[in-house]
This record gives sequence, C-alpha cells and structure tokens, in this order.
Amino acid sequence: MTADSLSVTFAALADPTRRAILARLASGERSVTELAEPFNMSLPAVSKHLKVLQRAGLIARSRRAQWRPCRLKARPLKEVADWTEPYRRLWEQRYERLDKYLQQLKADEAGDRHKRRKK
Amino acid sequence: MTADSLSVTFAALADPTRRAILARLASGERSVTELAEPFNMSLPAVSKHLKVLQRAGLIARSRRAQWRPCRLKARPLKEVADWTEPYRRLWEQRYERLDKYLQQLKADEAGDRHKRRKK
Repeated sequence: MTADSLSVTFAALADPTRRAILARLASGERSVTELAEPFNMSLPAVSKHLKVLQRAGLIARSRRAQWRPCRLKARPLKEVADWTEPYRRLWEQRYERLDKYLQQLKADEAGDRHKRRKK
Repeated sequence: MTADSLSVTFAALADPTRRAILARLASGERSVTELAEPFNMSLPAVSKHLKVLQRAGLIARSRRAQWRPCRLKARPLKEVADWTEPYRRLWEQRYERLDKYLQQLKADEAGDRHKRRKK
C-alpha cells in the first residue's frame, strides 16, 4: 500500500518537533548535531524525525560535505498551501459575517445610548 | 499527553478519504449516509473518519435535525494555511530562480541559432 504524497506530507507535519526542525531549516542548512541542540534530544531521536521528513520530501541531506547538512525542500509545503486554497473562500466569508455582526452590535449600542440621552 | 491542535489537524488531514469528506462538505451540510455513498464504505467506517475530523474541530454535527447533518468548520484549515505562509517566500524564490534559468536557456538557444545562421 503506497500512501499518496499529500497524506505522507500531512503525517510528517503532525508533530511539533518536526515542524520546529523545518522552521530552523528555513533560515539555512544545518547539521544533525545543530538540529538536535535546541530540542535537548538524542541524535538517534532527531535522526528518526529527519527520516520521516526526508521520506515526505520535506528535507534533503546533502552529499557534498562530510557533515551531510540538511536543507528544506519547499515543494510539499506549497502543495499543502495549494490544497487549503479552495477553502479560503469559506473562512473569509465567515470572518465577513462576524465583522458585519460586530458592526451591527456597535450600531445598536450607539442607538441605545442616543435613546437614553433623549429620555 | 495532549497533542497540540495543529498536530491533531495535520494528522486528521493525512488521509485521502477524510480530505474527500471535507471537500464534499465545502458545498454544504451532508448526512452521514450521503457522505458514505461516493466512497462505497460502510456507515461505521465513515463514522470513524468523521470522529477523527470532529476531534480535530474540522467538522461539527448539528443537533437541530434528527439526521444530524455534518458541516465543515473552516478555522483549522485557516490555521494550516497560516502555518504555511512563512515558507511561501522560499518556494516563490525557488520558482523565480527556475524561471530565470529557463529565460537564460532560451536566450542561449536564440544566440546559438543566430550564430549558426551567420556561418
């Protein structure tokens, strides 16, 4: 059974440590030792996370240096962003409705104040 | 151990059937039976997927009708889109570089044609 690539990407992103690793790699290449540091994690534990990220195509390990730096690969993240795009209309509509409702509340409140002053 | 909400969302999205259910709900409320139809799935199997989506806050079951329709909740999808946003710079840079490279290839090719014609 081969999982579709989007499912593999989502599964890889379903972990806060793996997302933090990607965030660190966004600013440039890092060695496994450098990646392990801020998490207070053993190298094998970090390596396990890196393997999941690598299988999902979210990172690549360079072969040109002996320390084999990790680098971020942006394509699967673009696929995630593209996947959310058709739903944007929905949350924007909902925020617009909420905004209208708040405007209405404010208008009603101002109306009440006006009436009270008239009494 | 409580998982952070973004991890729960990503885990819920790591399944093509669950993503297809969300896509159907994007056009409006549906009963469990209606959701089960296109997948040729048993009701208990669909119910299991719906529970995962509900736990992630991606859908809600209405209590106002006896058929308890499911509806999409857009907020976690907005959180996913917002999470990808800082990485947009990366893939856009990469596409720009690819674009420049292709422009260069075209220019080189045109130059070659020009030289050949001159011979």
